[in-house]
Amino acid sequence: GEIGEEVRVPVVRLKIGEVAEASTVAVLPVCKAGERDKGLEEAPRECWTEGEFGVVVAEKGWARWVVLPAWEPVAGLGKGGVVVSFSDARVLPWRTNRWYKEEAILVVADRDRKEVSVDNGFYLVGGDGGDLKVERGSALKETGVEESLGTVVLVVRPPKDAVDDQLSDEDWE
Amino acid sequence: GEIGEEVRVPVVRLKIGEVAEASTVAVLPVCKAGERDKGLEEAPRECWTEGEFGVVVAEKGWARWVVLPAWEPVAGLGKGGVVVSFSDARVLPWRTNRWYKEEAILVVADRDRKEVSVDNGFYLVGGDGGDLKVERGSALKETGVEESLGTVVLVVRPPKDAVDDQLSDEDWE
Repeated sequence: GEIGEEVRVPVVRLKIGEVAEASTVAVLPVCKAGERDKGLEEAPRECWTEGEFGVVVAEKGWARWVVLPAWEPVAGLGKGGVVVSFSDARVLPWRTNRWYKEEAILVVADRDRKEVSVDNGFYLVGGDGGDLKVERGSALKETGVEESLGTVVLVVRPPKDAVDDQLSDEDWE
Repeated sequence: GEIGEEVRVPVVRLKIGEVAEASTVAVLPVCKAGERDKGLEEAPRECWTEGEFGVVVAEKGWARWVVLPAWEPVAGLGKGGVVVSFSDARVLPWRTNRWYKEEAILVVADRDRKEVSVDNGFYLVGGDGGDLKVERGSALKETGVEESLGTVVLVVRPPKDAVDDQLSDEDWE
């Protein structure tokens, strides 16, 4: 019975020519969901840009990166910013539509905000030794979980193929 | 007496909101000139994009990356693509204007094209144990150098501050 409940995480669909409308971009380290909490903790924490070309410098080497438009939740990330790639969106606890089975998603999270503080917030958690999962704050609290791996700040859906779909706005679930 | 001589490397000025007009971008590993040939050889060679979000995956971790519009010379790079950042443009052998002293530049090079083949081409070379340098093919041939660290495919100048300068086209020297 979660339909209609307020969800506090923006879900945006990337547009074709993803960064085409962005005046600035963000480059973030990526983990695959299957890399579990280990991957999440290993991804570089401190990344900054240097000089006039905006060269991205990380505190350590990392092999997987994504370029996103500097949407507000992304631009506001500090050292804890990280992206987890999921092969489909069934990991999201509010799924109601069939697209969740068919689309890959990126979950942008803040590792510096581990506390499960908001009922309607969403959090990355390790799935009992399995892949990473996204859980609602209320569900975690019910089971006594007070600390997560990070707060979800944004969910990114892939660009649609059809050009006539490109005018649709962000959908905030 | 090199003024007026044809230079075969495009020099482009990045615009403010660098990737604003790009429908696709390229993410390339960056070395600093001071890291010398060692840095150049250590930078990851194989980078590819994965999935609908264009996640950049490198064969190995690397801490320094730049996002550039996928200009033709950049998009055409294979596994040898690399960027060297120089604190000013005096390293360029055709300098004639004062901006060379004042502007940082990025030199995009192809490590898979080491052969010094074209007189008017430009090549990255190690500077006798010093920083990396850019040399003209003819100058290298005169001293018997047949192999470089890579062929220069593009020189990138930083964005100008003033908005009214933003309409200027690429300058091909």
